[in-house]
Amino acid sequence: MSKFFTDRLSKLKPYTPGEQPKDMQYIKLNTNESPFAPSQAVSNAVLAESKKLQLYSDPECVNVRRELARVYNVDINKVIVTNGSDEVLNFAFMAFADEKKPLVFPNITYGFYPVLAELNRIPYTEIPLKDDFTIDINDYIGVNKTVVIANPNAPTGIALTLQEIEKIVASNPNNIVIIDEAYVDFGGESAVSLVDKYDNLLVTQTFSKSRSMAGARLGFGIGNEKLIADLNTIRYSTNPYNVNRMTDAAGAAALADNDYYMNNCKKIVENRKWTVAALQQLGFDVLPSKANFVFAKNDKIDGEKLYLELKKRGVLVRHFTKEKICQYNRITIGTMEQMQKLIDTVSLILKEN
Amino acid sequence: MSKFFTDRLSKLKPYTPGEQPKDMQYIKLNTNESPFAPSQAVSNAVLAESKKLQLYSDPECVNVRRELARVYNVDINKVIVTNGSDEVLNFAFMAFADEKKPLVFPNITYGFYPVLAELNRIPYTEIPLKDDFTIDINDYIGVNKTVVIANPNAPTGIALTLQEIEKIVASNPNNIVIIDEAYVDFGGESAVSLVDKYDNLLVTQTFSKSRSMAGARLGFGIGNEKLIADLNTIRYSTNPYNVNRMTDAAGAAALADNDYYMNNCKKIVENRKWTVAALQQLGFDVLPSKANFVFAKNDKIDGEKLYLELKKRGVLVRHFTKEKICQYNRITIGTMEQMQKLIDTVSLILKEN
Repeated sequence: MSKFFTDRLSKLKPYTPGEQPKDMQYIKLNTNESPFAPSQAVSNAVLAESKKLQLYSDPECVNVRRELARVYNVDINKVIVTNGSDEVLNFAFMAFADEKKPLVFPNITYGFYPVLAELNRIPYTEIPLKDDFTIDINDYIGVNKTVVIANPNAPTGIALTLQEIEKIVASNPNNIVIIDEAYVDFGGESAVSLVDKYDNLLVTQTFSKSRSMAGARLGFGIGNEKLIADLNTIRYSTNPYNVNRMTDAAGAAALADNDYYMNNCKKIVENRKWTVAALQQLGFDVLPSKANFVFAKNDKIDGEKLYLELKKRGVLVRHFTKEKICQYNRITIGTMEQMQKLIDTVSLILKEN
Repeated sequence: MSKFFTDRLSKLKPYTPGEQPKDMQYIKLNTNESPFAPSQAVSNAVLAESKKLQLYSDPECVNVRRELARVYNVDINKVIVTNGSDEVLNFAFMAFADEKKPLVFPNITYGFYPVLAELNRIPYTEIPLKDDFTIDINDYIGVNKTVVIANPNAPTGIALTLQEIEKIVASNPNNIVIIDEAYVDFGGESAVSLVDKYDNLLVTQTFSKSRSMAGARLGFGIGNEKLIADLNTIRYSTNPYNVNRMTDAAGAAALADNDYYMNNCKKIVENRKWTVAALQQLGFDVLPSKANFVFAKNDKIDGEKLYLELKKRGVLVRHFTKEKICQYNRITIGTMEQMQKLIDTVSLILKEN
């Protein structure tokens, strides 16, 4: 740290993204990327934009917002797009949480929430999950704080039902409830259908997982017009051109090809089913996942050891050191070939240990 | 504003980017874009990345940072890249300014500085320019605040010499001095050569103007390793994947083609010379510009009126309503064809009014 760094942020502990080692070719099951390339239409759209990069992008991102409005059947003024969904989460924290409206979220969830809270100096409470890693919705009913829930949750993969989400939203009319649906397309129920009914609901999603665009950085928020206008106030005070030309065009092209991506999601759900059964066969406890990953442990081998043994053999999964979950590994669901390789490698490790 | 919006930001006045009207085809001389398309290598690099968008971008952006280190002859650890240079400015304000180290910048300068200061709740002082629109460096010598200076300044186009910049940096050893060189490639002197000598200097630049990439969103900062590490602490607490795959590759490709872009800058400087002479011929006062725009007024016609009359005739320039500069218009320097059209249209308007 330099001597110039501000005191107020000196305790900031940045988020650690999944490792991206460059020493060898890995089967990458550690950052929940899609194993499927984007569709040809995306490539075509990007190529066309690459010849006009001298011109600023559209600060209103009408191309992709119009398509989002169509696919999600909402008014375009209910949609904001951002440089990945981390950005819409950051904007929402800035706009809707403060000392008077502190944040509340589960103690096991997306690791970026406490980081963004610290960055924006917003007080927050972390509520423990139940022993089975589910969220007890009673903890959030009428909690009178700004609520953030990943649904499905990460890294557990466990989802709440739409009915449960609605209870939380309805019981907190004076606070914003943010439902982070990064993984919703793999079997969860989206709360987008509720945004016309509740003025305190903000749903966030991303193109990173289900739409094969982690490398393009495109997230979005859907909520009532006033909330979106507030988020735009933050956006125009931070970076009005937050989404570049190529990503705007890529997102619109992906949505025009939506069937391709939703079909890919179905394949992931099938591969997940196979992987869960195979892991259980090997003695793993696997949490019931509605996401493109599973969270699993095996009493026969230490969680960190399994992660390291897999890495040694060219398979990357994600291990977290937090005590309550350190026996688990989060494994991204990829192609059947990748899953077969995972299971073969795990079998080998279990035999050798 | 929704009832949920935080009080602490309720007075935020977002930045207003240059208008992007869609009603007709304009000669766009209002947002300081380059009139030249990016080179073919950029397009090729982007196309290759478009087929791998399912994978996250490199959070370290080694591709473009390596090329920046080469072109600017600095160590790669002295370079950070961001989603446009607005983002590196925002990170720097967060990291290096607070109540104890408030900001100071000219009262006529890039309009985003006060917005970013308000967003981050950093106190700031705006120091008036001299009557001739130059910066009096004595106002910044030993000022004991975090200094931000656009060099060349916007929207005036007037530059300080490297010697003047060094005096400011050397006299404020306990505070960061940020030199925003968005327009430096059109005749200014860069302070990058001083980053090894002063640990309190941060230079920011952008690919938006001289490298024809406004639509790709790529900015960067150069400073000593510790400052860059601090900025990375903020970046990893905000958005670790802030620069997408396509932009990372486009930036690296542009730098490999650096001669093409520097040659384009020379053309802009030539066209600026011609335009200044032509405007003076028509009775304009034109401030001495080292940027890819000129700031000009004509006592025969009101500044806003000229802007509106030009717009009516399909030529967009940028007019600001702030009292001290409302008689001026900021005119981007484009191709000779565009400049000829501008001068012809201005002549016509002056005759009719």
